Amino acid sequence: MNLDEMKSFLAEQFPQGERFGELVELEPGQATMRLSQNDDHNRITPAHQRSTIMALADVAVYAALLSKIGPVSLAVTSNLNINFMKEPSKSQSILAQAKMLKVGKRLAVGEVLVFTTGDTDPIAHVTMTYAIPS
Amino acid sequence: MNLDEMKSFLAEQFPQGERFGELVELEPGQATMRLSQNDDHNRITPAHQRSTIMALADVAVYAALLSKIGPVSLAVTSNLNINFMKEPSKSQSILAQAKMLKVGKRLAVGEVLVFTTGDTDPIAHVTMTYAIPS
Amino acid sequence: MNLDEMKSFLAEQFPQGERFGELVELEPGQATMRLSQNDDHNRITPAHQRSTIMALADVAVYAALLSKIGPVSLAVTSNLNINFMKEPSKSQSILAQAKMLKVGKRLAVGEVLVFTTGDTDPIAHVTMTYAIPS
Amino acid sequence: MNLDEMKSFLAEQFPQGERFGELVELEPGQATMRLSQNDDHNRITPAHQRSTIMALADVAVYAALLSKIGPVSLAVTSNLNINFMKEPSKSQSILAQAKMLKVGKRLAVGEVLVFTTGDTDPIAHVTMTYAIPS
Repeated sequence: MNLDEMKSFLAEQFPQGERFGELVELEPGQATMRLSQNDDHNRITPAHQRSTIMALADVAVYAALLSKIGPVSLAVTSNLNINFMKEPSKSQSILAQAKMLKVGKRLAVGEVLVFTTGDTDPIAHVTMTYAIPS
Repeated sequence: MNLDEMKSFLAEQFPQGERFGELVELEPGQATMRLSQNDDHNRITPAHQRSTIMALADVAVYAALLSKIGPVSLAVTSNLNINFMKEPSKSQSILAQAKMLKVGKRLAVGEVLVFTTGDTDPIAHVTMTYAIPS
Repeated sequence: MNLDEMKSFLAEQFPQGERFGELVELEPGQATMRLSQNDDHNRITPAHQRSTIMALADVAVYAALLSKIGPVSLAVTSNLNINFMKEPSKSQSILAQAKMLKVGKRLAVGEVLVFTTGDTDPIAHVTMTYAIPS
Repeated sequence: MNLDEMKSFLAEQFPQGERFGELVELEPGQATMRLSQNDDHNRITPAHQRSTIMALADVAVYAALLSKIGPVSLAVTSNLNINFMKEPSKSQSILAQAKMLKVGKRLAVGEVLVFTTGDTDPIAHVTMTYAIPS
């Protein structure tokens, strides 16, 4: 699947997709999502931001995985581990760069580094495991 | 802090709080949050649900922690690990039962079991670490 | 499998088993391992202790899992997450109490609380995921 | 600290150090440990191997951290998350390549990729959090 095909597939899968940002890069086993933080900033809490970061990372690994195995909509996250390392700026976009570490027959493992644009120190690191249906 | 005081504190901290559900029980070191899933069900994706479950667990541990150390709004999540164990029903409320495992001077660790109402098999298990400011 | 059958099975599986302690309790989906720390105490480093605690928890979940599904020697750990909460005393035994949270067809999830004898504050909490062969 | 200074420091810290392998590379914020698997192969169980891999990764992150902050022997692991991705060959050495993702005043986060020599597919991926004493 190329970038445009993946965008179409994600748009079908995530009808509320804007909340999950935009797919901006796709290579075999790698995907980058970008999310603008353009809503009512005063109302964004740290728990909202963490939740948003986790969702963005979740979808980024999903895209990275599907770039290898094709549009299998039933792949299911079984484990997610996240280390939060830095308060994100509320005025910058968030970038989630996902890379698959393993794509097996039954399990896939990916990792994600999350940044705010213009900063080289990551705000979070995520590992995720997906169970792949037979 | 008792249940009503904590509800008021969370309402201040989370102006978009409804998305994070309602605090229904509070004991020292323990808290239960409940979230109704009453929106447009056809539009809820698994990634949305996972994100919602993580946010609910995050706030539940926060409440459980504050029940021990008081209203410290700066406590920061440093690590979250979640195992997803079962697809949640979309028509049931979600319950997150949090319990602190450690409340130290600098680090606190809590765990959360997440259920849908009327089911004894958990849909997810979460552990979280909070860094407590000096 | 009862306690004695499981002890025999573990002894076969782990010919160096003493390093992994002794199975002291077994219920369906639950197992407790105990490890005496009786070697050269001055030479035990924190990294050794952490490694020992992880191995003890690993085997405790394995026993708890097998108590539900029988002697499947090929079940494979896919994820382990551990929070270290307290320095263990070097002069006490270590107890690892494992409980299965989910036993599915393909994945099983268990958690472990680790104590030193005579102390009610846990020294560590572990969650583990096992992949079960078809 | 350069490679030789770090080797001396680790040798003091880990009097049973051989079990934890040999430091083979050190850059600021990065360290590689190598462990030969040259004992009685028939007696190595998967649980032993997992325990060994976790200990090797633990020490590799410790060395990577100390390369940034100097010889602080009291830094304490608070969280370790590991995904096991491939059975390691028992006849090859194991390489653990650690890299710090964050080195803050109170918390440090590192990740480790673990390989067997001659294979580009990792056998495990580890993230660790260290609490740094004030």
